[in-house]
Amino acid sequence: MDQHLTPRTTPVTDGAAARRIVIVGGVAGGMSAAARARRNDERAEIIVLEKSEHVSFANCGLPYHLSGEIERRDDLLLHTPQSLARALDLDVRTRHEVVAVDPAAQAVTVRGPHGEHQIGYDALLLAPGGVAVRPPIDGLDHPAVHTLRTIPDVDALRAEVDRITSAQTPGAAPRAVVVGAGFIGLEAVEALTARGVRVDLVELADQVLPPLDAELAPLLADELADHGVGLHLGVSAQSVHPAADSHRVTVALSDGTRLAADLVVVNVGVRPAGDLAREAGLDTGPTGAITVDADQRTSDPHIWAVGDAVEVVHAVTGAVGPVPLAGPANRQGRRAADSMTGRRTTPQATVLGTAIVRVFGLTAAVTGASQATLRQAGIAHEVVHLHPAHHAGYYPGAETMHLTASFAPDGRLLGAQAVGRSGVDKRIDVLATALRAEMTADDLAELELAYAPPYGSAKDPVNMLGFVAQNVLSGAMPQWQAWDLDEALRTSLVLDVRSAAEFAAGHLDGALNIPHTELRARLDEVLEAADGRPVKVHCASGVRSYLATRILLAHGVDASNLSGGWLTLEAARRSAAPLPPRVPTTRVTNDPEEIPA
Amino acid sequence: MDQHLTPRTTPVTDGAAARRIVIVGGVAGGMSAAARARRNDERAEIIVLEKSEHVSFANCGLPYHLSGEIERRDDLLLHTPQSLARALDLDVRTRHEVVAVDPAAQAVTVRGPHGEHQIGYDALLLAPGGVAVRPPIDGLDHPAVHTLRTIPDVDALRAEVDRITSAQTPGAAPRAVVVGAGFIGLEAVEALTARGVRVDLVELADQVLPPLDAELAPLLADELADHGVGLHLGVSAQSVHPAADSHRVTVALSDGTRLAADLVVVNVGVRPAGDLAREAGLDTGPTGAITVDADQRTSDPHIWAVGDAVEVVHAVTGAVGPVPLAGPANRQGRRAADSMTGRRTTPQATVLGTAIVRVFGLTAAVTGASQATLRQAGIAHEVVHLHPAHHAGYYPGAETMHLTASFAPDGRLLGAQAVGRSGVDKRIDVLATALRAEMTADDLAELELAYAPPYGSAKDPVNMLGFVAQNVLSGAMPQWQAWDLDEALRTSLVLDVRSAAEFAAGHLDGALNIPHTELRARLDEVLEAADGRPVKVHCASGVRSYLATRILLAHGVDASNLSGGWLTLEAARRSAAPLPPRVPTTRVTNDPEEIPA
Repeated sequence: MDQHLTPRTTPVTDGAAARRIVIVGGVAGGMSAAARARRNDERAEIIVLEKSEHVSFANCGLPYHLSGEIERRDDLLLHTPQSLARALDLDVRTRHEVVAVDPAAQAVTVRGPHGEHQIGYDALLLAPGGVAVRPPIDGLDHPAVHTLRTIPDVDALRAEVDRITSAQTPGAAPRAVVVGAGFIGLEAVEALTARGVRVDLVELADQVLPPLDAELAPLLADELADHGVGLHLGVSAQSVHPAADSHRVTVALSDGTRLAADLVVVNVGVRPAGDLAREAGLDTGPTGAITVDADQRTSDPHIWAVGDAVEVVHAVTGAVGPVPLAGPANRQGRRAADSMTGRRTTPQATVLGTAIVRVFGLTAAVTGASQATLRQAGIAHEVVHLHPAHHAGYYPGAETMHLTASFAPDGRLLGAQAVGRSGVDKRIDVLATALRAEMTADDLAELELAYAPPYGSAKDPVNMLGFVAQNVLSGAMPQWQAWDLDEALRTSLVLDVRSAAEFAAGHLDGALNIPHTELRARLDEVLEAADGRPVKVHCASGVRSYLATRILLAHGVDASNLSGGWLTLEAARRSAAPLPPRVPTTRVTNDPEEIPA
Repeated sequence: MDQHLTPRTTPVTDGAAARRIVIVGGVAGGMSAAARARRNDERAEIIVLEKSEHVSFANCGLPYHLSGEIERRDDLLLHTPQSLARALDLDVRTRHEVVAVDPAAQAVTVRGPHGEHQIGYDALLLAPGGVAVRPPIDGLDHPAVHTLRTIPDVDALRAEVDRITSAQTPGAAPRAVVVGAGFIGLEAVEALTARGVRVDLVELADQVLPPLDAELAPLLADELADHGVGLHLGVSAQSVHPAADSHRVTVALSDGTRLAADLVVVNVGVRPAGDLAREAGLDTGPTGAITVDADQRTSDPHIWAVGDAVEVVHAVTGAVGPVPLAGPANRQGRRAADSMTGRRTTPQATVLGTAIVRVFGLTAAVTGASQATLRQAGIAHEVVHLHPAHHAGYYPGAETMHLTASFAPDGRLLGAQAVGRSGVDKRIDVLATALRAEMTADDLAELELAYAPPYGSAKDPVNMLGFVAQNVLSGAMPQWQAWDLDEALRTSLVLDVRSAAEFAAGHLDGALNIPHTELRARLDEVLEAADGRPVKVHCASGVRSYLATRILLAHGVDASNLSGGWLTLEAARRSAAPLPPRVPTTRVTNDPEEIPA
């Protein structure tokens, strides 16, 4: 029996301070809660139980320690039990795993270095995080197989990379296979490549970064290929076994490919660590995540839960399930602490799923619902595609961004995504804020963002998303989509309003080429070629073809504009191809609407 | 009589297309309106009358052409009358100045290269812009005196800079005086310095960039001084006259200083060019700006107006007056075009005054109301000061940002400002979006922004603004401000909870130093030193002192925390000094609340 098991004398009621707060899990949500609880209540006894040997470590920083960008391992360890005791009077116990919760007795069973004991609590917070999903791959226990979720993981991976890069024999460059092209998988690919390891990336989905819209993903695939990464999309890894050649193992894929590797990194996602809660009789949902109320309280009035293990509500779809993101976890921790200590809480926000990843020189970011998610949820939407410069095009260094945004028929923003070399994080953060405020296309059009040539445009890309969506939703600019191409070719005249030179460099079979500046004079040619069929217009990015579409509509032609133009078409057409050709990410055309000032 | 004066056959009514649209002014708002009007109405005759020889030029790009960053002058000229005729079928006439409007006759009088004539209109848009304010300086007509608002201005300045930098004699480096430290003035200073010209900057206000909060402005002053710029704040330029030495002129200041210069650049602001409208009998406001309704329509039903010459309503203060910004002008043009052509218009947004400027390595940006504006308007507010890293502190390259944000007592955001080396534009754009959505501190706390170590923090600086404001507004963290220092020293115990080393490097007279980690053990020392007086706590940035304040409050002490800590105090204390000492912009302390994940 532990000396800390004192009788509970003060039951937790609103407005009253908790006598002893026990927190299970000392990273992100758990540690945010501990710190906030102390600031709220100087007198509470606050015990943090962490099963690993590290608390409050920067787990989002692990890939950057693997790459060597974060040189010192200590930089990942922002706090120690000692520093937390000094600053916040916390009783932090590492290597202490909670193996059972007894809600009736208000006590947890802890397995520590000296055996099992019980600790009573007045308020309990569960922040157990997620459990790495183990894919069904034979040989996954081979010592060459790693994952990347903890400090020991990155220690082991760094040691292994050091070994294989120094032991390198001529003609046998060190090689790795990364299984899973999600956020952490992509960061691992980048880190290993930076260390001189030749990487093959294996992903079950037909694209890298499955949360990304299919017509954006090829941009990342290009960037990976440009950095020597071998892509294996739409296939699964089936087995890992000792290799016959100079490398350590062979990874066999479902398409018959056999990949030589010195190490394998598997990151195919996490599932909520809800077992402890479920075994304690707390409500959990169909995904196994812990059910909580708006104050993060579980079905037991003395137990709260936060982080990757709890259910959240998606802001756009209303779907309920876990979302493993650091930002929400931290805020949930703060909210739970406020609730546990009787403070006013901020009403629980839904989750947008805002996320971002760097892939070599590109940034990809998402917020709200992807198109696939909207389709699955049966939510009506119009998607618009833009390829604006990240700042004024006339100022040196303008980089093309690739944006998608989905809007409900009433104009409400539902989701947005972006890929590009600069300015992506800013636009996604603005759009995430707009989503949270339930803004519409009209609202985006009217946002007043900071403009000077090095930073943006008088009409910022976010304003442009609003303008284009207004035009689409009002009917002023009917649009067709890249995935309508086959039907368009079958039923319509395709009118390509790019320059003759652009047309000569590549175009759709059967397309009529009339540069947009000549359209007014050559309308008869269009009418003759269309012969009563609809006219599907396109240019490189959708801007010139918008002008052309308006001209045609004014003359009574059934015209529509290809959303995102040739750039989106090219990407969408090859979004399922394993090693797709290039989509240029440099500026292709000036925007006639861009009237800087 | 011009051949274009055709009878007006179609009066403008909602839903009906205008027969002839005449637009006065071919930059920003005017040209946005012209382009939009064409897209809305293929059949309208659209005439753009521009008094200068250039339309649709990038006037925000002028300083960057002066610096040489935008090398080619043609890059500033995005469109010509010819290109606009081809793409948009616009009739653009440069060197055509409208000298009178006759609303009754629905005609304008135009002075062109071939004399005066009249043009009738069905709908008229006035986009005359602003007029440079001429400060009361003797000798302002000296040929060495320039301004920077147009293409001819930048042509003349570039020629002059070429001359003085190539004609340079030993011991007499080329020198310039810039009068006015607003946005364009600062850009001119940067550009001239980049060209090798030694610049003196003269500003009537006590600080550079008067829209900036006083405690942020010294950061810019430091950056200017670091790049060799001479600062003359709180003084006026009184005369420009031929010089006795090798330089061309001498500028005499109100404090007796005489500055040698080869050229002088005066940019002290613009006033609305409302004369044409007023002479035509249209309503104008007390500032001389044109009064418009939510559709940009003036007091005459056939005349609209946009841009620097019109009145707008400030979103926070409700003040009515002109705001010379490119973004609003462009959106007003679009709205006016929709109204003129009978399209649904986006309801007029108020103006936030979002603006940004680069000053060498720093960026300064503002949105909403500054503290001075709030005080002038008598709007109750709490201001919070933060110095967060622009991305995760453990990831290399984290730069300190300096943020201020003001909140109404009910939590509503009223304004925000930032200065820093990275990430400033992103946070101001997020905060501008939050302002537009009338978000509160609670809302900022719950924003879900994109986090990966190279881009942000799990608790983004914008979330932190929300957290801190919640603590202040709820009473959990009473704060004191830098401008309360004299009173604090007189009435209270100042408790400095930084480390002994930081304390030794500089501290307030009479302050008691107890590092925050020792406070619990040394509470008695505080109580004894305070002797019943309030305790005013501070640290470097406000984070450690927040923890200390919470400890003291829990023990019944009347404690409060210095907003922004020593960093803000240092800046605020010397905000009126002409050549102030240094405020470090590197990270001073880790944030114990920063629990990355």
